[in-house]
Amino acid sequence: MTNPTAAMLVIGDEILSGRTRDANMHYLAGQLTERGITLCEVRIVSDHRDAIIAAVRALSQAYDHVFTSGGIGPTHDDITADCIAAAFDDHIDVRADARALLAEFYAQTGRELNEARLRMARIPDRATLIDNPVSVAPGFTLENVHVMAGVPSVFQAMVASVLPTLTGGKPLISDTVRLMRGEGDVAQPLGEIAAKFPSVQIGSYPFQQDGRFGTNIVLRTTDADALAQATALVAALQGD
Amino acid sequence: MTNPTAAMLVIGDEILSGRTRDANMHYLAGQLTERGITLCEVRIVSDHRDAIIAAVRALSQAYDHVFTSGGIGPTHDDITADCIAAAFDDHIDVRADARALLAEFYAQTGRELNEARLRMARIPDRATLIDNPVSVAPGFTLENVHVMAGVPSVFQAMVASVLPTLTGGKPLISDTVRLMRGEGDVAQPLGEIAAKFPSVQIGSYPFQQDGRFGTNIVLRTTDADALAQATALVAALQGD
Repeated sequence: MTNPTAAMLVIGDEILSGRTRDANMHYLAGQLTERGITLCEVRIVSDHRDAIIAAVRALSQAYDHVFTSGGIGPTHDDITADCIAAAFDDHIDVRADARALLAEFYAQTGRELNEARLRMARIPDRATLIDNPVSVAPGFTLENVHVMAGVPSVFQAMVASVLPTLTGGKPLISDTVRLMRGEGDVAQPLGEIAAKFPSVQIGSYPFQQDGRFGTNIVLRTTDADALAQATALVAALQGD
Repeated sequence: MTNPTAAMLVIGDEILSGRTRDANMHYLAGQLTERGITLCEVRIVSDHRDAIIAAVRALSQAYDHVFTSGGIGPTHDDITADCIAAAFDDHIDVRADARALLAEFYAQTGRELNEARLRMARIPDRATLIDNPVSVAPGFTLENVHVMAGVPSVFQAMVASVLPTLTGGKPLISDTVRLMRGEGDVAQPLGEIAAKFPSVQIGSYPFQQDGRFGTNIVLRTTDADALAQATALVAALQGD
């Protein structure tokens, strides 16, 4: 019996120029190791279409899973999604489900869903969305490639969304609660809830909005009853 | 005129398992950028013979220079030197010049040049030694591949030995302007400055400080006049 194999593809000129130090590789390596998935190779390439497509194809063929980070934001040089579609001969455009997520998020926060931000809803037809509890713009899985953001807090949240789907155990269900309270304020009661429901994995992802601190709480489990009870307790932390 | 291209190959299970964080990539990236050599790709592979040989061949063919780190120490899993020889169909054994360096060093320090340490004198026939002022055991250059140690202090010393022997591009010069304005506010005028000075590479890196949004603008080019003009325009974006 051998463990499943994986590779990581980091996309970004800023790392190759030495300006930024990659943080995601070390994080993913640790997560995969804990989970019994063997990280066999990492590649870092620049924001060039041919380089990205070639690397995705090579790694997808060689390993059970490929995790990418970077290049799915709103600017003109965010080309990862289009390259993944090209690597698998899939069609890509702004997709209704991803657009709806973004529209709701920007409506809630009073900002404009402009053309640049709509780029983040470009998803290949055959892909499955990856939940982003931090900033909503989704990642996606196409074939055995999991496409995630480069911003470390978002990357980590997406890894937390994806990894449980790779075990092949009972299907995992989840809820997200958006609290307008700082992470430090809810940490203790959250810990008590987590202790009371050991079958529920509870992650917290802090954010800032209009100068106020908030925390998205993501609950994941295979037990629907436990999820409902734990989610109700977390939602009650809002107080209001 | 384009600058020379380079790739890096990091060899080591401990990085892929998440146990160790690679430090050499960030260092090399910065050194190459200063020297006008473009780092286009990094690969990290485990201590497996086939993986190392395949990566060395692929990168050696694709880029002007390849820099490797790791796997040239005294233990049984230090197989990099043998893999490099195999990748280029060269013969490898303990070589007299490398052995002499080690013998003198260990005699001076009163330690035994045992069989394990002698492994570090295994050098391919056609290779040129790379000086190691830290711990003597040499790296080597074979064809366009520069083989160096994984220990950061030794890696850095070897980079310092190798880089002056390479033909760089025109040295890259850079300026950084710190603007206390949000990235979204300066994106459009920045784009116009970038279009006006195509020889200047302009990167923007947002930050938050005391609740205010700011953006560091990094300008890089080989053209001192263009740098001065573009930097002045960027600095003027601060207003007052």
